[in-house]
Amino acid sequence: MFTLYDFLDSGNGHKVRLLLAQLGHAYELVELDIMQGATRTPEFLARNPNGRIPTLQLDDGTFLAESGAILWYLAEGTPFLPSERLARAQVLQWMFFEQYSHEPYIATTRFIIRHLPEDSPRRAEIPDRMKRGYDALAVMEKHLATRRFFVGERYTIADIALYAYTHVADQGRFDLSGYPNVLTWLGRVKDQPKYVPITYRQPAGG
Amino acid sequence: MFTLYDFLDSGNGHKVRLLLAQLGHAYELVELDIMQGATRTPEFLARNPNGRIPTLQLDDGTFLAESGAILWYLAEGTPFLPSERLARAQVLQWMFFEQYSHEPYIATTRFIIRHLPEDSPRRAEIPDRMKRGYDALAVMEKHLATRRFFVGERYTIADIALYAYTHVADQGRFDLSGYPNVLTWLGRVKDQPKYVPITYRQPAGG
Repeated sequence: MFTLYDFLDSGNGHKVRLLLAQLGHAYELVELDIMQGATRTPEFLARNPNGRIPTLQLDDGTFLAESGAILWYLAEGTPFLPSERLARAQVLQWMFFEQYSHEPYIATTRFIIRHLPEDSPRRAEIPDRMKRGYDALAVMEKHLATRRFFVGERYTIADIALYAYTHVADQGRFDLSGYPNVLTWLGRVKDQPKYVPITYRQPAGG
Repeated sequence: MFTLYDFLDSGNGHKVRLLLAQLGHAYELVELDIMQGATRTPEFLARNPNGRIPTLQLDDGTFLAESGAILWYLAEGTPFLPSERLARAQVLQWMFFEQYSHEPYIATTRFIIRHLPEDSPRRAEIPDRMKRGYDALAVMEKHLATRRFFVGERYTIADIALYAYTHVADQGRFDLSGYPNVLTWLGRVKDQPKYVPITYRQPAGG
């Protein structure tokens, strides 16, 4: 059985928990409090030297890090990842877009607002991060004007990757009302079979 | 024939140009001056709505963005990408690590130093970005202590992705002398057949 090292409030973790649920995989969840340094202990750094959740331990004991790599590993050979070469590259295009042009702005703004003190100097980063977050939302809005999902008109791990922090962007004070295609797509993802919310904790024992 | 929209000083572009050279693919290079807004014109945004290089136009006219997605597309079915499921996910793990934990610190510091004016307010970002860049180098150094390449003891697109900005980190004033395993690995990559430097411009006509 897989062991998932995770923090429930993390959208990067939600990506993995959502796909595990939709694939019907049982797993042991080990919750780590990233605010208390639980991912920077020698014990955890031996599992993931980059000190980040989510990290998935596979059945053979291997630790796999980076939400995008974990999604790819789990989705291979399932309907959540297309088999055509170009469509697969397009899935990766959106997953890299999410990690480079979306997450550092939308997720990080949400993190600063939810988890750092009111007087944190990092609050000064918010205006620039919000601007770039809206830039990412505009790219998504345009793409979704003529599409139901990000790649190949079907629900894939590209949608899972982009959904995770977009659907909680309001917790980072983003206003999505000007992005109607994004809002409709968020509903489409939430309507997928076996959907679980970001706060979902699999019952002990799978 | 492929058309590559690129900027020669870009490490993200170098990744693609290096793999194209090593695969022996001819392509048309369209150089865009990112400092003059060439990636934000309506014409280019129609090709890549996220306004970034490298962007590769495929034979069927499709535009593929994100260096990691382009590398994956090109490497599929070649010795530059393993065929085993876990090794493939590990290649992606390092490629996502590069885009999330390495490039925003090492590449961006280099960009600020090389391309922004001496009095740019963005120079204030350098100390924090350098600290996080050294964190990324430390993760690489540790991994390479017992390995010749990042995944499966062979040269893959994970090495290409990490090489691009690491080998020019000195241009961002990073001192690699404390990272001997990284330095040895950089030499190993540079010694690969058909290696081309970041400044290499394929002769017109392929």
